[in-house]
Amino acid sequence: MSEERVKYTLSEDQIPTHWVNLLVDLPGDPLPPLHPGTLQPVGPDDLSPIFPMGLIMQEVSSEPQVEIPEAVREVYKLWRPTPLLRARRLERALDTPAHIYYKYEGVSPAGSHKPNTAVVQAYENAQAGIRRLATETGAGQWGSALAFACSLFGLECEVFMVGSSYDQKPYRRSMMETWGATVHRSPSELTAAGRANAAHPTGSLGIAISEAVEVAAGREDTNYSLGSVLNHVCLHQTVIGQEAAAQMALAGEAPNIVIGCVGGGSNFAGLAFPFVREVLGGAARTKFLAAEPAACPTLTRGAYRYDFGDTAGLTPLMPMYTLGHDFVPPPVHAGGLRYHGDSPLLCGLVRGGVVQARAYGQNDAFAAAVQFARCEGIIPGPEPSHAIKAAIDEALAAREAGEPRVILFGLSGHGHFDLSAYDAFLSGQLEDPEFSEADMEAALERLPDAPAIA
Amino acid sequence: MSEERVKYTLSEDQIPTHWVNLLVDLPGDPLPPLHPGTLQPVGPDDLSPIFPMGLIMQEVSSEPQVEIPEAVREVYKLWRPTPLLRARRLERALDTPAHIYYKYEGVSPAGSHKPNTAVVQAYENAQAGIRRLATETGAGQWGSALAFACSLFGLECEVFMVGSSYDQKPYRRSMMETWGATVHRSPSELTAAGRANAAHPTGSLGIAISEAVEVAAGREDTNYSLGSVLNHVCLHQTVIGQEAAAQMALAGEAPNIVIGCVGGGSNFAGLAFPFVREVLGGAARTKFLAAEPAACPTLTRGAYRYDFGDTAGLTPLMPMYTLGHDFVPPPVHAGGLRYHGDSPLLCGLVRGGVVQARAYGQNDAFAAAVQFARCEGIIPGPEPSHAIKAAIDEALAAREAGEPRVILFGLSGHGHFDLSAYDAFLSGQLEDPEFSEADMEAALERLPDAPAIA
Repeated sequence: MSEERVKYTLSEDQIPTHWVNLLVDLPGDPLPPLHPGTLQPVGPDDLSPIFPMGLIMQEVSSEPQVEIPEAVREVYKLWRPTPLLRARRLERALDTPAHIYYKYEGVSPAGSHKPNTAVVQAYENAQAGIRRLATETGAGQWGSALAFACSLFGLECEVFMVGSSYDQKPYRRSMMETWGATVHRSPSELTAAGRANAAHPTGSLGIAISEAVEVAAGREDTNYSLGSVLNHVCLHQTVIGQEAAAQMALAGEAPNIVIGCVGGGSNFAGLAFPFVREVLGGAARTKFLAAEPAACPTLTRGAYRYDFGDTAGLTPLMPMYTLGHDFVPPPVHAGGLRYHGDSPLLCGLVRGGVVQARAYGQNDAFAAAVQFARCEGIIPGPEPSHAIKAAIDEALAAREAGEPRVILFGLSGHGHFDLSAYDAFLSGQLEDPEFSEADMEAALERLPDAPAIA
Repeated sequence: MSEERVKYTLSEDQIPTHWVNLLVDLPGDPLPPLHPGTLQPVGPDDLSPIFPMGLIMQEVSSEPQVEIPEAVREVYKLWRPTPLLRARRLERALDTPAHIYYKYEGVSPAGSHKPNTAVVQAYENAQAGIRRLATETGAGQWGSALAFACSLFGLECEVFMVGSSYDQKPYRRSMMETWGATVHRSPSELTAAGRANAAHPTGSLGIAISEAVEVAAGREDTNYSLGSVLNHVCLHQTVIGQEAAAQMALAGEAPNIVIGCVGGGSNFAGLAFPFVREVLGGAARTKFLAAEPAACPTLTRGAYRYDFGDTAGLTPLMPMYTLGHDFVPPPVHAGGLRYHGDSPLLCGLVRGGVVQARAYGQNDAFAAAVQFARCEGIIPGPEPSHAIKAAIDEALAAREAGEPRVILFGLSGHGHFDLSAYDAFLSGQLEDPEFSEADMEAALERLPDAPAIA
C-alpha cells in the first residue's frame, strides 16, 4: 500500500467569494418565464409577492459572477469547503484505468447540498424583514436544509412534505422539528391546492409546491422558498463546482466527464456549471452527464415546452423539458428526483447538446450505491446513487476502451434517512416502477396553452 | 459580521503517524487484568483465543507511542483528519466570554469516532488470517463501525445488538447490513449467555458482549472485537486528541477544560489522553471532565473494584469503577453509554484525581443538544449531548466568573439514527430513568470474589 492521495481538502478561506452565473454564458437571449394568467414575460415585480428583491435580482442578473454576502460565507464555514475524494478502492474493485473523483456534500448539517442555497434564501428574506418561509420538500432534504437555515436567521419555517416521503421518512420530519420547523403532510387540508388533490394521497413535489406558494401568497409576512429549478438556486449551488475545480487542480487533473443526478437540476448545476463555463468559452472539452430516474425521466423522455412549475398552475410558466405539470411520479425512494420538470438553464444545455441525459432504474441505482458503500464507506442517498451508477458505467467503458479517463461525480448527500430503501433492496423487495407512456400522453394533453419553443 | 475563523482543517498528510500510549505515563505499575477462573494476572497467551497477537501486543505495550500501520492510515484518509470547529454561535447565544471548541467525529462513514479503532481491529485480524469477527453493539455505533471496517478488509462480521437499541433503531441494523454484516437481536437464542438472559428482553451491553465472546471462543476462524474499554481501543482513539491539539495550536489557544462523554471510555480517552500526557508531564494544567448518564453513573456512583467486563463472567476481571457486571441500565437513548464499567485506564485517572466525572439526566442532555443544533447546525448523538451539557455548564460558569476560559469538547457522533429520541424530547415524552441505589447494592453483592484495590 503506497502513500496515495485520497482526499483533497481546502481551508475555509478558500470558500468561493462569488457564485457563477451561467445565465450570461448561454447563446442568445434567455427564454423568459411567462405569467400564468397573461402569458406575458414575467418581470421582477411579478415575483415580489413571494420572493425578496435580493433573490429576484439574482434570478435575472446579467453579471457573470455574483458576490456572496459575508454573512452567508460565515455560515458556509460550518461545513464548507466540502471534501473531494478519489475513489481509489472503487477504481480497484472495477479494475478500471479511470480515475474516479467525487465531491461530497453530505457533510453539511442537513446532509446534502441543499443548505448552500437555503442559507442564502433565509438570509435574504431576513434582510427583507420577512418573518416566515413556506416551502415544500420531497425526500426531506430541502425541508431540512431550510429548517436549519431558518434556525440560524431567526425565521419561522413551514414545510409541506410530499406524502409518500412523510410516511417513508418520519425521522426527516423530526430533524426539521429539531431545528424548530413546522411540518405538514402534503396534500394537506390546509390549502385549496391540497384539498383539490386529496385523490393523490402519496402527493408529489408539484402538489406540495402549490400548497406552499398558496400559503406564501396569502400572508404578508411570509415568503416562499424553492429548493431547486430557479436560476438563483442553481447560482447558489455553484460553490460546489468552483471548489471541485480547485481541488481537481490540487490533484493535477481535469475531469473528462462530469456527472450529477437531476431532480430539479440545482445539484447538477452546482457541480457542473463552473465546468460548463469553461466548455462554452472554448477552454475545455468536457462531457456532462445528467442522471435521472427511469420512473421520472424528464430529460430523456419529456417534451421541451412551456409548463407550470407546480401542479395547480400558480407559478409562472417556464421553458423546460416536462412530463406535464400534473404528472404524479411513482413513489420511488429518490424523492428528490420526483419532479415533472427541470431547471430551464439545465434544459437549455440539454437542448443545446452540451449536457447528455440518461435514466436509470431504482434497483440499478441501489446496486451501485451498495458497491460504492462497501468500497468507500459512505452510504449514499438514493438520489446521488443514480450518479454513482452513471460513474461506474463510465469507468467500465473506460476499461473497455483502455483509456485512463478522469470522472468527477457529485455525491450530493448521504442516505442515513433512506435505510428502509436499502433494506428493501437487500431483501429483494425493491420495485422498479415503470414510467407510463400513456400517463405521459395524457399529461401532455393538459399542458397549458403557451407559445411553442423553437 | 467580521471575518471570524470557525473551522480548523488539516490535510490528510497531517493524520498522526503514531498513537499515544498513556499506559506508560501512569504512576506505578498498571493493575493487571485477572483470569476469571484462576484470579491470576492475565498474560498475552490468555487473550489469544479471541484476539490477534498484534492487538494483544498493543494492549500491553510499554512504548510511549505506537506506530500506525500504513494500511490503516490509508483508510483513515477516507474521513480523517476530522474538523475542529469553534462554536461561535453557541458562545453568542450563551453570552459567555468562554471560547468553545468541538472536535467532530461524526464525519466518518459510520457517523462516530468508532471507526478509528474498528479499522485497526479489522486490519490486524485480517493480517492474522482470521475470517470473521463477532462483536456486540449498543446504540449501533460500534456495530456499524466494525461492519464498515470488515467490508474494507474482506472479513465477515457478526453483530449482537442490544435488544432495546435493536427495537429503537432499525436503520442502524440496515446500515450494518448494507456493509455486509449479519445482525442478531441480543439476548438471542444463539448462545448460552443469550438464553440465560431471556428474562432481560431489553438486553444490555454486558449480555451482548457475553454472546459475542462465546461465539468467538467457540470458532477457530472467528475472533472477538471490542469497541471500547480496553487499552488498545483507547490507544487507537488518540488520533482524535492529537489532531485536536494541532488544530488548537492553529487557533492559537490551549484548552483549559477538556470534556468528553463516557460509556466504556474510549471516546473520552481518544480526545483527552494526548492532553493528559501534557498534564502528567507537568507541561500543562488542564481540567478534564467525563460526562456520563445519570441512569448509568459508573464513575460518579460506582465502586472501584475488580469486575467482569461482561454479564456472564467470561472476560477477564478488570480494575474499574463498576455498577456490577450484571447491572442492566435503564434503556436511555444514549445506548453507547449504557455500560456497567469503564476503561481501567480512565478509571485510574478518575481515582487519581486527574479526571473529574459528572452525571447528567437524559432531558438535560437533550435540551443542550437542541440548543446546540439550533446554533451550530449539527444534530448530535445522545451520547455526546452529555458532553455538550457539560460544556454549556462550564461556559455559563465562565460567564459567572467573567473569565475567557477555553473549552474543548468531543462531539463524537451525529444523531441521525436517534431522531425518535428527539421526537420524544420535543413532545415532552422523554423519561429520566432513575439510577436505583437498591439495584446497585444488589449488584455489588454479586461482584466476583477478587482482590480489593488499594
